Amino acid sequence: MSGTFTPDIRTQALSEPVDVAEYLFKRLHQFGVDSIHGVPGDYNLVALDYIPKCNLKWVGSVNELNAAYAADGYARVKGAAALVTTFGVGELSALNGIAGAYAEQVPVVHIVGCPSTIAQRNGMLLHHTLGNGDFNVFAEMSKNVSCELTKLTDPSHIAEQIDHTLQQCWLHSRPVYIMLPTDMAQKKVEGARLHTPIHLADHKNDPESEDYVVDVVLKYLHAAKDPVILVDACAIRHRVLDEVHDLIEKTQLPVFVTPMGKSAVNESHSTYGGVYAGISSHPDVIKRIEGSDLILSIGSLKSDFNTSGFSYRTSQLSTIDFHSTYTAVRYSHYPGIGMRGVLRKVIDQVDLTKLHAQPIEQKLPILEKPDASGTITQSWFWPRISSFLEENDVVITETGTANFGIWDTVYPAGVTALSQVLWGSIGWSVGATQGAALAVKDMGTDRRTILFVGDGSFQLTAQELSTMIRSGLNPIIFLICNDGFTIERFIHGMDAEYNDISNWKFKDLVDVFGGTSDRTAKFQVKTVSELDSLLADKDFIAAKRLQFVELYMPREDAPKALVTTAEASAKVNAKQE
Amino acid sequence: MSGTFTPDIRTQALSEPVDVAEYLFKRLHQFGVDSIHGVPGDYNLVALDYIPKCNLKWVGSVNELNAAYAADGYARVKGAAALVTTFGVGELSALNGIAGAYAEQVPVVHIVGCPSTIAQRNGMLLHHTLGNGDFNVFAEMSKNVSCELTKLTDPSHIAEQIDHTLQQCWLHSRPVYIMLPTDMAQKKVEGARLHTPIHLADHKNDPESEDYVVDVVLKYLHAAKDPVILVDACAIRHRVLDEVHDLIEKTQLPVFVTPMGKSAVNESHSTYGGVYAGISSHPDVIKRIEGSDLILSIGSLKSDFNTSGFSYRTSQLSTIDFHSTYTAVRYSHYPGIGMRGVLRKVIDQVDLTKLHAQPIEQKLPILEKPDASGTITQSWFWPRISSFLEENDVVITETGTANFGIWDTVYPAGVTALSQVLWGSIGWSVGATQGAALAVKDMGTDRRTILFVGDGSFQLTAQELSTMIRSGLNPIIFLICNDGFTIERFIHGMDAEYNDISNWKFKDLVDVFGGTSDRTAKFQVKTVSELDSLLADKDFIAAKRLQFVELYMPREDAPKALVTTAEASAKVNAKQE
Repeated sequence: MSGTFTPDIRTQALSEPVDVAEYLFKRLHQFGVDSIHGVPGDYNLVALDYIPKCNLKWVGSVNELNAAYAADGYARVKGAAALVTTFGVGELSALNGIAGAYAEQVPVVHIVGCPSTIAQRNGMLLHHTLGNGDFNVFAEMSKNVSCELTKLTDPSHIAEQIDHTLQQCWLHSRPVYIMLPTDMAQKKVEGARLHTPIHLADHKNDPESEDYVVDVVLKYLHAAKDPVILVDACAIRHRVLDEVHDLIEKTQLPVFVTPMGKSAVNESHSTYGGVYAGISSHPDVIKRIEGSDLILSIGSLKSDFNTSGFSYRTSQLSTIDFHSTYTAVRYSHYPGIGMRGVLRKVIDQVDLTKLHAQPIEQKLPILEKPDASGTITQSWFWPRISSFLEENDVVITETGTANFGIWDTVYPAGVTALSQVLWGSIGWSVGATQGAALAVKDMGTDRRTILFVGDGSFQLTAQELSTMIRSGLNPIIFLICNDGFTIERFIHGMDAEYNDISNWKFKDLVDVFGGTSDRTAKFQVKTVSELDSLLADKDFIAAKRLQFVELYMPREDAPKALVTTAEASAKVNAKQE
Repeated sequence: MSGTFTPDIRTQALSEPVDVAEYLFKRLHQFGVDSIHGVPGDYNLVALDYIPKCNLKWVGSVNELNAAYAADGYARVKGAAALVTTFGVGELSALNGIAGAYAEQVPVVHIVGCPSTIAQRNGMLLHHTLGNGDFNVFAEMSKNVSCELTKLTDPSHIAEQIDHTLQQCWLHSRPVYIMLPTDMAQKKVEGARLHTPIHLADHKNDPESEDYVVDVVLKYLHAAKDPVILVDACAIRHRVLDEVHDLIEKTQLPVFVTPMGKSAVNESHSTYGGVYAGISSHPDVIKRIEGSDLILSIGSLKSDFNTSGFSYRTSQLSTIDFHSTYTAVRYSHYPGIGMRGVLRKVIDQVDLTKLHAQPIEQKLPILEKPDASGTITQSWFWPRISSFLEENDVVITETGTANFGIWDTVYPAGVTALSQVLWGSIGWSVGATQGAALAVKDMGTDRRTILFVGDGSFQLTAQELSTMIRSGLNPIIFLICNDGFTIERFIHGMDAEYNDISNWKFKDLVDVFGGTSDRTAKFQVKTVSELDSLLADKDFIAAKRLQFVELYMPREDAPKALVTTAEASAKVNAKQE
């Protein structure tokens, strides 16, 4: 340290100087992130050195899109996730995964290691650039799918920028983007700030307005003859499940979920009525929801695939919409008044003597009597899975037959269900399973992680199986082998070549990716009895190793809900003026 | 056809009405595209039906990034390529591949099937959207990596839009983006236009200014004592290789290539001197280039990895820069005067009696005498490959040891070399190989397609091997098994865990992906003698099936050029003010 070394004046003023990368990763740890996803690249390598120093785990995925999907899955189970990529090539590969997290409201912190501030200022013609000296172009692209974007270029602001960005990530439950230049990773910032955890606040209501809204809600609730609760995606994403559960427990009102709301409520609860998604729902569910004079709609997200092609026949005059930042009672909007505070006060103030909670006759899917030696059909399979599932399982369903079929599966209590019904990027679930299983492990729990994915979708991201094996994760993977893109076949081109896929020896991938017989197991089931045997096997149930099941189903068989929704989609696509 | 059907007035006015999708694909066929890359998605399915009708082949890749890489590879061999993806999820997955084509100047037509114009106008909450009713957001992102972006929303303009967009793709040699709503695919446009091929024009110079520049160039060229030619990437991308070859043949001047210019000239030509890339070059090459009093620099692209970290020591006072749209003679710029016209006139008008073409002593890489039973080293391997290569081979090198090592390989005449030195997205080469091999097949030639890729990079896009097998392509794949991200190790973190990868049984992937023993072959070579035997095997040389070679090299061994460039990169990354 002799010679001409002159300490930075600002460093001298810091009471506990820490390096930027250390500050960032320690904040992420406090934010609930124990493992960092990503792919190394030369613009992020120095920062990656800090991960083990901060007691975090690095999980190198096989590519950035898979890593982004994994971060999404991790955040859905653990509350937040972080992804590190490199400038240009890495971040763009991850972009679809980040866009999915944005659409589906999942808090993922995307850290992009980028060229040094000096290289940027000089417009150097570096690799991983477009060759035009524009170092902002990729951040601009990510701005559209981030609720906050920050560039760490001035050490005197960096600690504050990081804190603010993580707060926004939490508040909006959406991705944020942090641009970390190579020369900033080791700059000093104030480490004393780390003694105080960042304040993670949810949306806060103005108390007076909130009381007003609560009164309005209670007035309609007390007056209703047959009120019901309908729980949707945003109830999960904006973390009001405690309020939802308390509301159900206190009121004993009939409760339904949408496809994206599935697992939000305890499906073994006596007032649970099933899945509502418009015309594809069970006729009795349709009758109860559409016949109700007051739907307490919590966190709704009425996308095409969540509503069987916009087929709700409910009236806004019979609806109260609870959202994260506003409430709508019939046609009256109350901007700024979010559901958390309103629901809590409704729970506290509801007068049970005035409440009409009509009993519910549970219409749960019925298990058909199958031909034991026969093929496994979609209509039999999904209700059959209900009894295989256990409390607290994490269940991931891919876009396609799986995330429609699962409507007919009844979850035990405590299940966390992951699907991507709005964004619907095929291949997502394989990455998400890696992240979900890792989150379970990081939380020190022994919940099972169970994936249902079709063969076509699996091919997009197949090699993330390698990361699961490498990380010692034990998911159960049900690979639905039905010869291609069945969801597309039902929308258009039942026999079209473009909906075919190449036939792989899928389960052999476990060996190729380094799976050993003590840590992994492979199965192939083609008949009802084979599946029944497997699902009854104690070792299989215990899920103490990674288990990969090739599950054969007929090519042109699909869950009823998928068929209905696909028809609706084809109509929307073709609609002429 | 009875009832209320009323034909569109505009359709009646068309002399040969054809559907939009048919028009588009027929134009693409005329544009030189025989196979369409992509992944099906419900917003593009109707359009895909037209592909076989237009005598084109559909090549469904396993995911969109791989498909984009494949389109890039196809275009580099065949002149142009097309990629079809679906709105949101599909196009964003392809974005890194398109950005690479933009940076590296490769003409790829990206067609995005998107929701119907009516759904867009109504802001419907469709799957594959961000849920915010914004249907322009993804196109805006692509705008940054497309030289032209067009939305086909009004049938009366669509034919003209398609023609103009393809012209721009050709002129700028960069990706274009075409947004095709589902309801537009079957609208009618004027098919009579198809009888006249679109006019694909390169940049045209103003004749008077061009003559002026030619005079200036000739003045310096005739006066120079030791002029040399240096050929770089843009000479290939902007299609002036005929001019380059004629210039060399006529003048017999010493000619060198940059790493990105490799394969632009015939390396067995008597005046070929080797690869110049600043300090990593052979000392004699450095002496000839940096000692020259006039460098005719054709299509230069001085990125860090193309110049060993900006280590040229050439003077602008001794340089004439020929570019696609401008010329620079010493410090005088001539905007608008592109190389094609100037070079042609220089060739025609050069006075050989005034020209000083100094003889060149070829300094080609020397093949070391290896220990036959010893491991295969990078320094021995790359010169060794020279004699394995044959005329007209297509050679693809991945970012990493391969695209630096290949500097030491001398190509036979007619080789087409593909690399991604500027964009440097790892995994690119696997997709690009699929596209390149397909282009060779579509052109009806029997050129061999040979890939060199590292194990770390291969993992990102490994499943594109499946598409090669499915399409009956016969590339030779040399998979360099050296235990992880060697290029990153040399930049930072030689022993860091994040530079490790999971060890796969790589060659078994051939079987998993459906490779049969009559159509594929697998090899594993660990020693010099094993490699020598393989490279001498007649069946192997003939390349009549897909051949996959696991090629083991030491983990911490790297080509000299990589070591030098990595050091320079690490310095740029760390540079403080």
